[in-house]
Amino acid sequence: MTPENPQAVVLLSGGLDSATTLAIARDRGLRCHALSFDYGQRHRFELEAAARIAAALGAVEHRVVRLDLSAEGGFGRSALTDRIPVPKDRPAEARSGRGIPATYVPARNTIFLSVALGWAEVLGAFDIFIGVNAVDYSGYPDCRPEFVAAFEKLANLATAAAIEGRGRFVVHAPLLRMTKGQIIRTGLALGVDYGLTHSCYDPDDDGAACGRCDACRLRLAGFAEAGAKDPARYQS
Amino acid sequence: MTPENPQAVVLLSGGLDSATTLAIARDRGLRCHALSFDYGQRHRFELEAAARIAAALGAVEHRVVRLDLSAEGGFGRSALTDRIPVPKDRPAEARSGRGIPATYVPARNTIFLSVALGWAEVLGAFDIFIGVNAVDYSGYPDCRPEFVAAFEKLANLATAAAIEGRGRFVVHAPLLRMTKGQIIRTGLALGVDYGLTHSCYDPDDDGAACGRCDACRLRLAGFAEAGAKDPARYQS
Repeated sequence: MTPENPQAVVLLSGGLDSATTLAIARDRGLRCHALSFDYGQRHRFELEAAARIAAALGAVEHRVVRLDLSAEGGFGRSALTDRIPVPKDRPAEARSGRGIPATYVPARNTIFLSVALGWAEVLGAFDIFIGVNAVDYSGYPDCRPEFVAAFEKLANLATAAAIEGRGRFVVHAPLLRMTKGQIIRTGLALGVDYGLTHSCYDPDDDGAACGRCDACRLRLAGFAEAGAKDPARYQS
Repeated sequence: MTPENPQAVVLLSGGLDSATTLAIARDRGLRCHALSFDYGQRHRFELEAAARIAAALGAVEHRVVRLDLSAEGGFGRSALTDRIPVPKDRPAEARSGRGIPATYVPARNTIFLSVALGWAEVLGAFDIFIGVNAVDYSGYPDCRPEFVAAFEKLANLATAAAIEGRGRFVVHAPLLRMTKGQIIRTGLALGVDYGLTHSCYDPDDDGAACGRCDACRLRLAGFAEAGAKDPARYQS
């Protein structure tokens, strides 16, 4: 962080984790530029949630970058962007094990952080926030501490701002070692309205959550752990 | 590289370096998937050149990913995507010195390699080719060997394919230590038609090169070094 220019780029998916991450960044006194991606997700509720959260949590700006990672765009092969069924009712062991789930999108966080880095450099910001989590991480390789550290190293080799000594990029992953319950308690303490967030991989046409996909099950277990009620709307 | 699946993703800008890189990858027996970006470049000649080169050099596929890095998309501040004047008639010392030129696009190669990585993972390819060059590199931080090495390390932490042991990603930068003259001699020996390539940062409306920007001057010096005639069309 450069004291004269306390700005940050915050990756904002519209889910619970990234909303909490934005609240943490703001709580640290940073002017937050929220960045979302329209990457061919099967539904639009995440992006609508991201816009509501950015406004509610005082982001100075919210930008949505279009990048087609769907099957039509030649990427696909993920249940989040393609027609592969979203896994339902998987036990926690299956979710937190070593297997890579069907919802994995190849190189997603690498791509998202790269664009965040480019934007940060344009803004003169050196702090990038991402809401990855290695505890309830669902098996995504790009949610691990070694991934975050490797990207931060790359960022400081890749950019004119770093090479010319204007600052040092830091990739903040404040949720990395929190449980879902700790994340929710942190966000509630910072005033996050989790009713604005969207987590479900397979919502109905009105955006109501299925309650059965990995994301819903992790979320519901997290609220139980936090001793709080999930304000999200679920399919009855 | 996995022997059963000799495929590669090759970043193809439409310029001389990436065309040579594609020829090198094909010469190594790889089935090449060429990847270009429509990132808000000021002119379209590069992308048209990329399509011609991909066809001429036998790429099995050529994909153009749209990603708006222009000023309108919130990135800008580069002479390649914004209305900043392209520097002209700079001496070689100014081009090869430590200064970052106005044509720098923040985090461009990081973003391009990230998308290439995602596509490679979908294809089951483990070889990614990029035509960066550290000799005549014009001062871009993301054209240096340490950048390429850091990205390769990241790729092998970021992806399911690497984590699950299906292969190891290799980022090939075969031009890294070549002079422009060596690049051109290599390409000519592999049958590259450099008349198909476009290098100029500031062409006229018909795509004729200016002959005076850094890219043109490096190119012309390279042909002189190689003892060959540049078949590109220049403004008279």
